[in-house]
Amino acid sequence: MRFYDYQHAPSPRRVRMFIREKGVNIPTVEVDLREKAQYETAFERKNPRCTVPVLELDDGEFIWETLAICEYLEARYPDPPLMGSSPEQRARVVMWYQRIVEDGFMAVSESYRNFVKGFSGHALIGPTGYPQIADLVERGRVRTQVFFDDLNTHLTGREFIVDEVFTLADIAALATVDFAKAIKMEIAHNQDDLKRWHQSVSARPSAKT
Amino acid sequence: MRFYDYQHAPSPRRVRMFIREKGVNIPTVEVDLREKAQYETAFERKNPRCTVPVLELDDGEFIWETLAICEYLEARYPDPPLMGSSPEQRARVVMWYQRIVEDGFMAVSESYRNFVKGFSGHALIGPTGYPQIADLVERGRVRTQVFFDDLNTHLTGREFIVDEVFTLADIAALATVDFAKAIKMEIAHNQDDLKRWHQSVSARPSAKT
Repeated sequence: MRFYDYQHAPSPRRVRMFIREKGVNIPTVEVDLREKAQYETAFERKNPRCTVPVLELDDGEFIWETLAICEYLEARYPDPPLMGSSPEQRARVVMWYQRIVEDGFMAVSESYRNFVKGFSGHALIGPTGYPQIADLVERGRVRTQVFFDDLNTHLTGREFIVDEVFTLADIAALATVDFAKAIKMEIAHNQDDLKRWHQSVSARPSAKT
Repeated sequence: MRFYDYQHAPSPRRVRMFIREKGVNIPTVEVDLREKAQYETAFERKNPRCTVPVLELDDGEFIWETLAICEYLEARYPDPPLMGSSPEQRARVVMWYQRIVEDGFMAVSESYRNFVKGFSGHALIGPTGYPQIADLVERGRVRTQVFFDDLNTHLTGREFIVDEVFTLADIAALATVDFAKAIKMEIAHNQDDLKRWHQSVSARPSAKT
């Protein structure tokens, strides 16, 4: 296998953390997004959406979506489980993962990509150009605020997002909260449960990536 | 178990089709979105995001996200498989499902919800109000067009989206293509492969929902 990564991007960080938590060693290729390497023909042939993360399987097939990569790695390396130990727990992990991505990660991304000059003409991921829309800068910030509030409420009395176990849901939420620094949003002083959770999860060796 | 559905909505249709393909009978509760029943306190207690589909498990727990529901049903009723028969095939199903949702379903939804008067002040799903943004009406249409083109290209020489087997990816794509009628977008006359696939998949009994 081979993992296509970019150290400074929040999206592949989720897979990077997932791999470290599994304790496996997968050869990694850096795709320099600053140099727009993801749009080069050689990479587009691997992933038509021109994004990282991508996982190349042993037979040369490419899996180019975060959740699909994590599910595959979970099947191949079941220990420690990061996606639940029963069908019910797995359903909780997947539903929280999806909510974190849609309500949190996409919200931060919406604000960021519609603001930063470097994304002018590329406000959405992928090879198709889309112009920035000024109203989305603020809408993304409001959505991120709501997401932080909801997550803080959910974490009241809980150590982790799903049951009492560290999972992909925590990885996705950590990547989202840290990504929000790019739009100058941090955990608010009164979001005590989110703050406690963030400190605990950030202390894991896998988070130092 | 109990399935919270709304017959006229595209999002729960994916779970509805999934259940019919499995050939199981799950008691169904209609949540009348026209009457805004999803925002009532009784339903918000089931699902804080105020959306359908929701699956209530036998112990009274609620799973309120489409992919999580389908994964749970796949584990509980493995036959016929709708999410692949190997870790590699499952990864393909999940990656295509996610792409179809992000590039297709969300694109149609973006155009629709920012246009239709009934969604004024509710341009995004969930209990938080967001104003409509006029620029997204057209952006959503362009994204939908790109999605149709990409799907047509992918389906060249293929009967189904993943390998030679009907899966959740086909269900999600069918729900998306049919949802696009709401923004008056149809398969273009030159998208022959998409058209052939759509006719074939629409002929399944599960699609008559």
